[in-house]
Amino acid sequence: MDNLLYEGKAKKVFATGVPTEVLVWFKDDATAFNGEKKGEIASKGPVNLAISAHFFGLLAGKDVKNHYLRTVDERTMLVQKVSIIPLEVVARNIVAGSLAKRLGWPEGKELAEPVVEFYYKDDSLGDPLINEWHVRALGAATREELGVLAETALRVNGILSEHLAGKGVKLVDFKLEFGKNSAGEILLADEISPDTCRFWDAETNRKLDKDRFRRDLGDVSEAYREILGRLKGNESA
Amino acid sequence: MDNLLYEGKAKKVFATGVPTEVLVWFKDDATAFNGEKKGEIASKGPVNLAISAHFFGLLAGKDVKNHYLRTVDERTMLVQKVSIIPLEVVARNIVAGSLAKRLGWPEGKELAEPVVEFYYKDDSLGDPLINEWHVRALGAATREELGVLAETALRVNGILSEHLAGKGVKLVDFKLEFGKNSAGEILLADEISPDTCRFWDAETNRKLDKDRFRRDLGDVSEAYREILGRLKGNESA
Repeated sequence: MDNLLYEGKAKKVFATGVPTEVLVWFKDDATAFNGEKKGEIASKGPVNLAISAHFFGLLAGKDVKNHYLRTVDERTMLVQKVSIIPLEVVARNIVAGSLAKRLGWPEGKELAEPVVEFYYKDDSLGDPLINEWHVRALGAATREELGVLAETALRVNGILSEHLAGKGVKLVDFKLEFGKNSAGEILLADEISPDTCRFWDAETNRKLDKDRFRRDLGDVSEAYREILGRLKGNESA
Repeated sequence: MDNLLYEGKAKKVFATGVPTEVLVWFKDDATAFNGEKKGEIASKGPVNLAISAHFFGLLAGKDVKNHYLRTVDERTMLVQKVSIIPLEVVARNIVAGSLAKRLGWPEGKELAEPVVEFYYKDDSLGDPLINEWHVRALGAATREELGVLAETALRVNGILSEHLAGKGVKLVDFKLEFGKNSAGEILLADEISPDTCRFWDAETNRKLDKDRFRRDLGDVSEAYREILGRLKGNESA
């Protein structure tokens, strides 16, 4: 494919003949710690595409507008073209990762209420945590848009948490990205996968996400496939 | 004096015969970078007490409730006893310090609107930046209390910025602490001084605050006294 518009760490984006649509091609490449750790996870591209497509379909059915249009082939997704808002919107139900460090709380502690965080998407700054005043100072989003992002993240959290609970999976936390389409609508974009979510087995708390890669826990590819299997299977649905 | 209740890096707090009042004794000790850098600034205690008393009086006259009652001697201030809310509330008008690092912006850039930040007061964690969801998860303040803190910080910013502009000083940023008195009222507490504010000469941008100590710029004590002189003098008042 030519017409490469953008290459990120885990995906490439290509133009199509339709100006409002682009193709997203999912790589097997994995990175962590702001690109310092690099590797490859076998079959990650197709697995993350299938998981993302599953979640985007589920969310569209519950009126959470998102960029997904259809799956073209196992690594290629057709989506609405959006201009990405330079924020990572994180929602958390259980303490893990940077929240454990920030608050000095043990990983695994359940939060009484979900916590929402905004990070400024800028690799050279290490994607810093920012607050709503920083967001406005940066011109990244207006107060109203920020409200939409936080509210959507909490809705997505409710929908995905319930769905995953039915599959024996705890949704610990996740990162969303949003963009604006040509009509100026804010759409959920990017991907929703074990690269961008923390999933723990509900019985054993076994990690089924990118923390297996970050922390060299082994069976990384198997964990990603396990999540896809749970979503597509009939375990407890 | 005995009846020491608490010793901080820059002040000691002593009980009085009145349960709702305490004495705050201002040291000359200076620390920076979460206590990693230590030193002493000649006459800092009396100068910071006099500057704080000046600002607290000014703010009380504009209905910003604060803990200050009266000055007992040059190092000792009588204040209402409060239970400190474990947040540092920062307001910023010009980019400096950690904001320059966080957003990748040059020191000295003027912000279109003030930026408010909350830091969790915990030395062992390095006083991390937190957002409103973290504040609630920590139980540090309710949503309503957080609104009061932010609104008060912005009011204080307006009052002090205008006052200082009349003295030829730019208020770059500052840190406030708040506490609750025995009646449950939220009062502005701690101190307001060159230890807790960035002050720049309006003409030359010369730093007249603790950055002279942090960055070994020299004439630290002189800068603190310069601020007090501007406040007490008749320069352009």
